[in-house]
Amino acid sequence: MGDTSRFAAATEDDTRAAIMRATYDALTSHGYANLTIQRIGDEFEKSKSLLYHHYDGKDDLLVDFLRFMLEHWEAKAECREEQDPRARLEALLDRVAGVELDEETAAFTAAMEELRGQAPHDAAYREQFTEHDRALRERFAEIIAAGIDEGSFHNVDPARAAEFLLTTVNGVRIQRVTRDDAGGVAATRAELDEYLDARLYRGDA
Amino acid sequence: MGDTSRFAAATEDDTRAAIMRATYDALTSHGYANLTIQRIGDEFEKSKSLLYHHYDGKDDLLVDFLRFMLEHWEAKAECREEQDPRARLEALLDRVAGVELDEETAAFTAAMEELRGQAPHDAAYREQFTEHDRALRERFAEIIAAGIDEGSFHNVDPARAAEFLLTTVNGVRIQRVTRDDAGGVAATRAELDEYLDARLYRGDA
Repeated sequence: MGDTSRFAAATEDDTRAAIMRATYDALTSHGYANLTIQRIGDEFEKSKSLLYHHYDGKDDLLVDFLRFMLEHWEAKAECREEQDPRARLEALLDRVAGVELDEETAAFTAAMEELRGQAPHDAAYREQFTEHDRALRERFAEIIAAGIDEGSFHNVDPARAAEFLLTTVNGVRIQRVTRDDAGGVAATRAELDEYLDARLYRGDA
Repeated sequence: MGDTSRFAAATEDDTRAAIMRATYDALTSHGYANLTIQRIGDEFEKSKSLLYHHYDGKDDLLVDFLRFMLEHWEAKAECREEQDPRARLEALLDRVAGVELDEETAAFTAAMEELRGQAPHDAAYREQFTEHDRALRERFAEIIAAGIDEGSFHNVDPARAAEFLLTTVNGVRIQRVTRDDAGGVAATRAELDEYLDARLYRGDA
């Protein structure tokens, strides 16, 4: 079940990467609320004392985990420039707000939203989610600007449209894991497609 | 600073209303993460033992608080039928995703999102947020259906457009309290207005 691709690029610091892998596995299995350093250690093939050597505690480790996930996401996002803007935009939306999630991704999404729920009262978490949002917003804005440049998108304000898409994606993410009725993702995505057709895409692609 | 209007309609059960008022005040002052039954008791003018008599603990009380807030919101929402659909929709969006929040509302919004962050691992919280989302979605859908009926809105699928609006609102709410850059609410609302103009509103109002 393990999606090791999320960790494949991390070769520079093997210990950190191994700790991040263990954190990912523990979050996916237990969620934030039931997570302990002990449970992260259970997923970790090296000495547990390394965890305590590198991190002050669970939240210190998880803030670094958020930083790691963002670095990794940004490194991976760099490699996707070959498609046309519309295909890139739709692939990105599928990736960050897909209608169907496999079990592991669903569990990990739930854990990430629990982490996000720490941000209102914890500045270190808030800083990380500010950066996660910035990265996704910039990615949307770049794609929209590219579409305008090549003439396939209407001349909208890329930053504003990107913020709107980001907001929709974050709405999908939080609803998906905090509602019993699966968050209505399909309906939201269908209406988002209407928005894209009305506001962004020129003619038929 | 106290917005007592949130509690004005609750006369049937004075003790419950007083507990809910104390919970609101404690949540606004301390947030979920730093909330204790003791701190709710500090805001409560009656005997603290009443809290323990009525509730098993902090989470049991907070789940009832979410239920109370929803009942209150639904009762209040019933009274706003007089305006035309477009004015009603914009008033509702201002109310649930306003660009500027006063200090108390901002603190309360943060606490609500912390509560929502409990929902991935707690079925009782999840049930409440499912109901909160349902209520807001139904309100949006009713307004959209009324606009279609009177001919001022295009003939969209009210349920689908309502789900999309709900998702945007929930995105605004979570971003607002989990980012250092205030969540870009103004940009999101400006783009949402473009969506409404393109998809929902017929001609000029």
